[in-house]
Amino acid sequence: MTTPLRLGIAGLGTVGIGVVKIVQNHAALLARRAGRPIEIVAVSASSRKKNRSADISAYAWEDDPVALARRDDVDVVVELMGGENGPAKALVETAFVHGKDVVTANKALLARHGQALALAAEEAGQLLRFEAAVAGGIPVIKALTEGLAGNAVTRVMGVMNGTCNYILTRMESAGLPYETVFEEARQLGYLEADPNLDVGGIDAGHKLSLLSAIAFGTRVDFDAVQLQGIGSVSIHDIRLARDMGFSIKLLGVAQMTGRGLEQRMTPCLVPETHPLGQLQGGTNMVVIEGDSVGQVVLRGAGAGEGPTASAVMGDVMDIARGLRLPTFGQPARDLLTAPPAAVSAAAPWYLRMTLLDKPGALARIATVLGEAGISIDRMRQYGHEDAHAPVLIVTHKASSDDISHALERFAGTGVLVGDPVALRIEAV
Amino acid sequence: MTTPLRLGIAGLGTVGIGVVKIVQNHAALLARRAGRPIEIVAVSASSRKKNRSADISAYAWEDDPVALARRDDVDVVVELMGGENGPAKALVETAFVHGKDVVTANKALLARHGQALALAAEEAGQLLRFEAAVAGGIPVIKALTEGLAGNAVTRVMGVMNGTCNYILTRMESAGLPYETVFEEARQLGYLEADPNLDVGGIDAGHKLSLLSAIAFGTRVDFDAVQLQGIGSVSIHDIRLARDMGFSIKLLGVAQMTGRGLEQRMTPCLVPETHPLGQLQGGTNMVVIEGDSVGQVVLRGAGAGEGPTASAVMGDVMDIARGLRLPTFGQPARDLLTAPPAAVSAAAPWYLRMTLLDKPGALARIATVLGEAGISIDRMRQYGHEDAHAPVLIVTHKASSDDISHALERFAGTGVLVGDPVALRIEAV
Repeated sequence: MTTPLRLGIAGLGTVGIGVVKIVQNHAALLARRAGRPIEIVAVSASSRKKNRSADISAYAWEDDPVALARRDDVDVVVELMGGENGPAKALVETAFVHGKDVVTANKALLARHGQALALAAEEAGQLLRFEAAVAGGIPVIKALTEGLAGNAVTRVMGVMNGTCNYILTRMESAGLPYETVFEEARQLGYLEADPNLDVGGIDAGHKLSLLSAIAFGTRVDFDAVQLQGIGSVSIHDIRLARDMGFSIKLLGVAQMTGRGLEQRMTPCLVPETHPLGQLQGGTNMVVIEGDSVGQVVLRGAGAGEGPTASAVMGDVMDIARGLRLPTFGQPARDLLTAPPAAVSAAAPWYLRMTLLDKPGALARIATVLGEAGISIDRMRQYGHEDAHAPVLIVTHKASSDDISHALERFAGTGVLVGDPVALRIEAV
Repeated sequence: MTTPLRLGIAGLGTVGIGVVKIVQNHAALLARRAGRPIEIVAVSASSRKKNRSADISAYAWEDDPVALARRDDVDVVVELMGGENGPAKALVETAFVHGKDVVTANKALLARHGQALALAAEEAGQLLRFEAAVAGGIPVIKALTEGLAGNAVTRVMGVMNGTCNYILTRMESAGLPYETVFEEARQLGYLEADPNLDVGGIDAGHKLSLLSAIAFGTRVDFDAVQLQGIGSVSIHDIRLARDMGFSIKLLGVAQMTGRGLEQRMTPCLVPETHPLGQLQGGTNMVVIEGDSVGQVVLRGAGAGEGPTASAVMGDVMDIARGLRLPTFGQPARDLLTAPPAAVSAAAPWYLRMTLLDKPGALARIATVLGEAGISIDRMRQYGHEDAHAPVLIVTHKASSDDISHALERFAGTGVLVGDPVALRIEAV
């Protein structure tokens, strides 16, 4: 095969330009590896005249990205615009109708419409590939779909939003409060236009839902992901966790249980000696557990021009080499609908609250826990100068239902100031 | 495609039986993922009657493994016998002639004959796959060949022999001498029949030479790997390194330099805070550095029934799914012959020696280093009760050539007792 593989790229932001640079700078290397040249023939973005760090003058320009999907000279549409509806969705749908394969980095699109788009791709005999949508440069989709295809996957875990991990590790290392570091992250350009996509855990939840589909052969079900953002994690929590040998991470966990598929993306305490606990800044880590392979850990940059473009090019090279697989590793029509399971496995919990400094306050809290069947491993009341006493409790293993009930009943005791913080301590 | 993919397995040791179990226990899962059933039709091993933990009575038996390659009912030969010549080589060669694909875990075979076998496979239009030959269950061959195919690879590093890492970490944690832990490892069955394959760094060197070929598009050149085993690493070295914040690892490094391809597998000091320094027991880790992706780190079990069988099945599933690539990611005839480069980058070095306790001894050593252009970062002479003074020197950056020259000239000083130990301190 020496016919070139011809790309049409929609979106020339950081990642799009990264792809352009790889195709331009590594033309000979890519052709040698793929057995055929990789060429860009057309591009589309919101502004043609913007100053860019790569020369795009040799490529045809389309004002309307969807027009890329209709061009006879495009084999693969590379969708790097983002957005879960609108032009990104229209572009991908149109591409399949016109016999193009699609490579995308768009987790929101796939978390919402992955099943429908995978069906459309497979009915049209086309590919929909999305390595760049999960964990940046780490080739985790490939590892899970192909390399570990001989395993029944038992659990997938990971830190998959570099911005949240940057905020948490920066709070920890600099001792700064959430609000300050959040503002730093905004000024550094680390946050999405809607920051809640990052700090609310939504972006990471999108990614987890895609991993689940491959791991367990189930339809993407983002709505079933239990989401909790990092906005409630205070510098106090980070310090207290550290004193006990833990780091706080926005951790995704997906596992198939007897009652259905458990998916959650929540701040958790993980041992600071575990590779997950040591993860710094924007780095991502995905842990895959299979019945034969045991635990495989993958680490790399979770975002940025080079790493994300590397993942896009991994998909492009597969297509150029004629490697063709269904979107989620098996035909989308065969994917199961798994009932969502509440978080099932009991775990120790970290509870932090502020009590009114009056006789019997601590006893009331302890009584509520006891009545909820939750036993206390450690409890500390801290010194204080006002009428508000900070209290830290580490429980023995308890279900999240029991913890939720206890938290509800705390309110009725009349001794709490503000809302308590409850974080799961995850055994990894 | 619903025709079954039919396997003939040669070798029913730990890994072979692991493959049999996966095929038997996950028949439905594998068929769903591959779009076709995976079946075992014939097997061969040294003894038919041996007691095995899987039932092989349903499969045809061949006394001669090479006969598997001639069976009309076999599509893929799975070679798990080992050995760099003899029946393993004959089996693989015969398989291609008879139109079979081959999956193997045999690093020695590929390190010695990889180029010839890859050529033979490609001329016959067949596949030669070897994920299980490198780093056990970690899908590193796939990551490097496919997922990261958009990168110019700048460096590949790793700890790839679990037995050596077991010995080194056990020495460190239990404070036991090399000889004791070596004997433990032998009794636990961790060592190859010829232990020098493990502790001499040969097995790990085989693996590094295979990674190099993919990373740099060069012919496998195991003879050019600079090898040093772990037999010279003493418990003293481990303790002294630890005091300075380092762990000693048998570390492989491959990188393309202006002067050629540098490949080495030697004991090195790595920072104990780096994931490589923290690697315990039989776990393997491979670090891949690409110009776009930056650093990707992969960790997992380096050996054992489940992990290695998982890697074999990854290759089998690719073949079942119709994913076909040349052995080293590009046609073997296009692979370059890279001149072997001496270790080029200067590094700090750890030098440990024993000196005769007489006036001027230390000065003589320091003079030799100075004349060789090597400057000293730290030097310590330790308290001692006999006439032999243990001395530790950490140098500033020096080339390995300068260090070799200095070591040669130490001998002429007449103040050394025994041989000095020189270990590179690797920046990772």
